[in-house]
Parts: sequence; structure tokens; C-alpha cells
Amino acid sequence: MKIATCKAPVNIAVIKYWGKRDENLILPINDSISATLSLDHMCAKTTIVSSPDLTETRFWLNGELQSTGNKRFQKCLEEIKKRAKPDVECLNWHLNIVSENNFPTAAGLASSAAGYACLVYTLAQIYEVDGNISSVGRMGSGSACRSFFGGWVRWLKGEKNDGSDSLAIQVAPENHWPEMRVLVLVVSDHKKAYSSTSGMKTSVETSELLKYRAENIVPRRVEEMVQAIQNKDFPTFAKLTMQDSNQFHSSCLDTYPPCFYLNDTSRVIIELIHAYNEFREETKVAYTFDAGPNACLYLLEKDVAEVIEMINYVFPSEPIAMSSYFKGKAVPYTTIDEKLMYMLINFRQPEGKLKYIIYTEVGSGPLVLKEAEDHLVAENGEPKI
Amino acid sequence: MKIATCKAPVNIAVIKYWGKRDENLILPINDSISATLSLDHMCAKTTIVSSPDLTETRFWLNGELQSTGNKRFQKCLEEIKKRAKPDVECLNWHLNIVSENNFPTAAGLASSAAGYACLVYTLAQIYEVDGNISSVGRMGSGSACRSFFGGWVRWLKGEKNDGSDSLAIQVAPENHWPEMRVLVLVVSDHKKAYSSTSGMKTSVETSELLKYRAENIVPRRVEEMVQAIQNKDFPTFAKLTMQDSNQFHSSCLDTYPPCFYLNDTSRVIIELIHAYNEFREETKVAYTFDAGPNACLYLLEKDVAEVIEMINYVFPSEPIAMSSYFKGKAVPYTTIDEKLMYMLINFRQPEGKLKYIIYTEVGSGPLVLKEAEDHLVAENGEPKI
Repeated sequence: MKIATCKAPVNIAVIKYWGKRDENLILPINDSISATLSLDHMCAKTTIVSSPDLTETRFWLNGELQSTGNKRFQKCLEEIKKRAKPDVECLNWHLNIVSENNFPTAAGLASSAAGYACLVYTLAQIYEVDGNISSVGRMGSGSACRSFFGGWVRWLKGEKNDGSDSLAIQVAPENHWPEMRVLVLVVSDHKKAYSSTSGMKTSVETSELLKYRAENIVPRRVEEMVQAIQNKDFPTFAKLTMQDSNQFHSSCLDTYPPCFYLNDTSRVIIELIHAYNEFREETKVAYTFDAGPNACLYLLEKDVAEVIEMINYVFPSEPIAMSSYFKGKAVPYTTIDEKLMYMLINFRQPEGKLKYIIYTEVGSGPLVLKEAEDHLVAENGEPKI
Repeated sequence: MKIATCKAPVNIAVIKYWGKRDENLILPINDSISATLSLDHMCAKTTIVSSPDLTETRFWLNGELQSTGNKRFQKCLEEIKKRAKPDVECLNWHLNIVSENNFPTAAGLASSAAGYACLVYTLAQIYEVDGNISSVGRMGSGSACRSFFGGWVRWLKGEKNDGSDSLAIQVAPENHWPEMRVLVLVVSDHKKAYSSTSGMKTSVETSELLKYRAENIVPRRVEEMVQAIQNKDFPTFAKLTMQDSNQFHSSCLDTYPPCFYLNDTSRVIIELIHAYNEFREETKVAYTFDAGPNACLYLLEKDVAEVIEMINYVFPSEPIAMSSYFKGKAVPYTTIDEKLMYMLINFRQPEGKLKYIIYTEVGSGPLVLKEAEDHLVAENGEPKI
């Protein structure tokens, strides 16, 4: 019997991936860039047991047995086995795969990226695979490929039809910009989410603006973003991040029929951040939104206390949610400037527009966990209850 | 003393105007197309008195005395005078100008287009100006130039720097497509509206997608729209209308900082119309949104009853608003199909998301009113109270 347990991080794109040029291999129409978030506050965790005694391969996600017939799951398994050391004895053994996300999947926080990265990374331990395996994770969920590295990561769209050059590389390591912080604002929404897979497909088929963006705007923007990150140039980084988030949602609106991911609360957050940056006469915070209403704010440590006070004032929590409103790193306190408070009056929202807030930072890539207590399976190789 | 009273209509664009190439002359970056709405339900009305006894020019709008220093107002006055018959004796007399909109300006329904068209059209009566004066209206408010004709109207962007070829022409007269109907859904919104003048300016300065749209997409779409209108091809007309509305809002979102005009209620309307067209397996209704959350629906007379029932079901009015919820033409009734009702359940909204609904149709251009009782001034030339 062989066992491996790993953790893999969430990543939040600052130059967005939206649109595939190959649906099957999951090859994107443009490069994208993301920050990898700390494993301490949000991550996927997977334990895989391989044993000659198992009679079938089973997969549990958050405690529920899943079908292993899923095409993307099968593809990842198949691809990682192709790269296995030829003499690995367990290649034909069945597997027990047990996965968990330590954040609510319902929150619409790119759980599939961390999940597929973790699955593939853990499989790579079992089959003793070396090298850049991000392209294998890509076949599970496109953006998963960016979760194979810590720090700042670029997914190269690649040129080849077989997808072998569509993989992630590190732009800068996790300790490169130590002041960088991230606030995830989880927005209340009663609306059923659009699937990003089908939204993306419809966008590619119908939006001329998306095509123009991918071919003519993103290539230049990616280079500017790499420079901004390498130079730790926050104002440029922030402006590009906000512009690219808006342009991605703009392409969604140009899709026919249109897909909407932002709601009225998202809109208030966007307007609030612009008003705050203008008030401070400096770009201090950047927002970005994926395929859902939740905001991810990038900002520097020195500005966290004031921004958190501002968010608390504009988005009062429901009394019942108070104790669990903040998750992640310890939240600093400050008192809010009177002039700032005055500016914020018009932004103030009713209670409960945000579900909770996660305060986190840029972190490392996937980790192998060696302690027995870390395994998600009991000694018999079955999931712990 | 000379007196003239006119009415001018509202127009609703189906190919949108967004972006000026000349701020001063109000020259657009692309052609646009609109339908002129019936004067019976929404219009501006203006009375102008010219007399050698007046010692100054005054202007009342909806009962309030306005400054006449407004640059656009002055420009329209100046330009129309340039075109006056040289022997018109009143050219140097002062004016009393009295204007009213017969629909709430607060509703965000392009009141400035009807207002400036009416002002210029009435001035043209006073100064005995002939010919296409839409380019004069354009200098007051760009889209006003489309309110000088009935039916279906195209505003040619023109090529000249002096703007002399940037004017409106009729694509089809008001009786061309007699089955066409319009429902204006006035959406409740507590948000202060963005000015469209400044939003448009920021879009031109910052949105690369807007530039691409104006240069590469709209020219083709305008020709397709003219064909669809001339052929009374509703499905093509409707699809182009929805796509162009979405692309205009898409450009607003690509603006930096972004401008939002749609709110969550607008979003429900968009999704509802797509779901309804899909349910009926035919494009039966088109939505379009200007620089605000209100929807304008284009549909054929035969479908009005069912669509109104659907809207009533999805957007229940507040009990207090019931008696005045529908304005305009008499609303037909029907009972709603059970399968349709079932499909609509998930769309149902709380009471009061719509303020009211105007049911109207395509109508004529401006009219001169000859009856004494139509004048907005009393016999002494001062506004009636």
C-alpha cells in the first residue's frame, strides 16, 4: 500500500482566463496571470491510497462518494500515469481518493482550481512524477494549472495543438512582494450561478469583443502586468487588475445571450474602491471578480486596517454573523478618519450584503504532508468520518 | 408678437449612440438607429413667444425658470437663427420659451432628446426655417437629432469636421411596421444616475472595446438593422437590438472607472426575455436599455397580451401603485399558459421592483399645434400657471 497527502492553494487571476480554443484539452485563447493564496486560510486537501487490495477506484469529495466516470477526472488520471516512472509498481493498482476543500464550495471561490491541482499533485506523489505537471491539472480545470506554483504565476496559452506548451510558470516567488495582502469579500446572492464552462463557450462563440480582447489587448496587458509585479509597482498592478476584471465581465455582457456574474453588491464594491482610491489620491486597493459576485481585493499591508474599517462601515454584518464575519489572518483595527466616513455615507448598505470576509496573503504552491495525522484516510485506507 | 407651440417625440435607439468624436459639435463615433415613440403617451411640448416688447429671453422648463447661459441652449438658438429667412422681422426680438415634458424626467427616459428636438423645432417655426434641422437639435443633445422624424430614424455620423453632414434621415415611416409595439418598464432605483455625457466621454478616452465596436462592428450592424426594419424581419431586428444594447453596456463596463447603468432588476428583465423567447421557441420580444436601469421592450401587437401578463406575474406592483401601474395605450388581457407560469416561478420578484409600465407604439415626428388652448402661455405671453 502507498499513501500520499497534499494541500494545494487557490489562485485569483489578475489577468483573466476566459475562453478556450480547444474544449477537450482546455487550451485558452490568451495567457493569464494570478496570485496564489496562502494555504493557511483556503486550500484543497487530498489523500490518495494505492493498494493491490483495492477492487475499484473510488473518489470522495467533501465526504460524498463521486462518480469516477467524469471525463476530466479520467483525463487527469490517464495523463499523470503516462508520465509515471516506468518501474512504479502501483501503476495498475486501484485508488482511494479522498478530497476536501477547507472553504465553502458554495461561496463560488474557484474551488475546482485548487481541487484539481491537489488531485494531480497528489497523484504525482503516488506515481513518482517529476517536472512541470501544471498542464495535467489544466485538463481537469483550466485555471488549476496556476495552482501548481506559489507566488505570482503565468499560464502560457501555448501554440501547439496538442497543448504540451500550455502550462504555468512562476513569474515571481511567494516572498517577492511580502507586503501584498488579499481580502475576499463573499457576497450574498440568491441567484443560481451560471456555469463558467458553458458561459465561456458561449462567449467564444458569440462575442466579437472577447476575440478582440484575447488577440489584441491581453498580450500587451500580460507583459505590463509581469513588469508591474516584478517592479512591485502597486498603482500599475492595481489599475491593470481592475481594468482586466472589468473587461472580462464586459465580454460576458457582450455574449449572446449575455452572462452576468456581478450583482448590485459587486457594483457597490467597485464604486467604493474607486471612490476610496480617489479620496486617498492614490491607488491603494484593486478589486477583481471571477465568474461570481464575490470580490477579491488586493492591497498592501499598511492599508489593510483602514480598508477593513471602511468595509465594516459600508457593509455592516448581520448581528448573528458577527463572530464569524472575519476569517483568515488576524484583523488589525484602526479608527476611521472623519472625512473618509463622510464620503462613505452614500455607500452604506443594509445589513447582510456580505456573508463573510477572508483576510489572507500570497502563499506557496502545493505541499506534501508527511504526518500520519494529516491523512484523510484511516489505517484501513478508507475515509475518516 | 409671434407665437408657436410644438410637440416632439421621444426616441429609443436600437443601435446605440455612445461616444463623441467632437464634444463641442456633438459628433458621434458611429451611426445609430432608433424608433420614434408615439406623441400620445410621451412627448415634450414647447411654446415660444417672440415680441419686440420683451426685454430679455427667458426659458421655463417644467414650470421652473432656467438659466439661458447654458452653452448647448445658446448654440441651438444661434444655429437656428443662422438658418432663418433673412427678412424675418423677429430675429432680434427676445423670447419667452416655455417647455414641458409629459413624462417624469426623473424616470431617466431620454427627456433631453425630446426636449431639445422640441425647442429647435419650435424655434424653426418662429424663424421660418425650412429643411433638415436635425443637426441643430444634435448640438443640444446628440440623440435629439433622431426625434425630428417619425417612424424609424438613422443618425448618420457624418465625415465632415464642421458636422454639417451629421444629421438624421428617415429609414422607414411610422406606418411602415404597424404591428410594432413598445413597453417601457420603469425600474425602481435609488442610485444617483451617472451623467451620460461624462460617462460617454470617459468611455471614449479609456475603452478600447468601444473604439473597436464603433469602427468595426456598428457599421455592419447598422446595415443589417436597416435591412431588418425594411423587411419587417422581427427575429433579426430583435437579436440585433439586444446584442447592441448589451454591447453598449459592455463598453460602459470596459470604461475606466467603469460606468454601470443596469441594476439587478434590469438583469432579471434580460434573463426573463431570453427565457421567454426560448420557451416560445421564437424571438418574440427584444429588450434595450439606455443609460439607466429602465427597459424598453419591442414586440409585435399579437404578443403584447401574454407579455404583459408575464411581466405582471414576475413584477407584482405595490398595491398602492396598482391604479397607475399601466400608462399609455389600453392594456389587453389574457390568461397565462400554465407551462409558461411554471417556467416563470424562479423569476418572480418582490413587489415594487418596477415603478410603472408605459404601453406605446411607433409614432410621428414633431407636430405644430395651432389651437390657442395648446399654448403653454397665457395671452400676456407669460407661462400659464
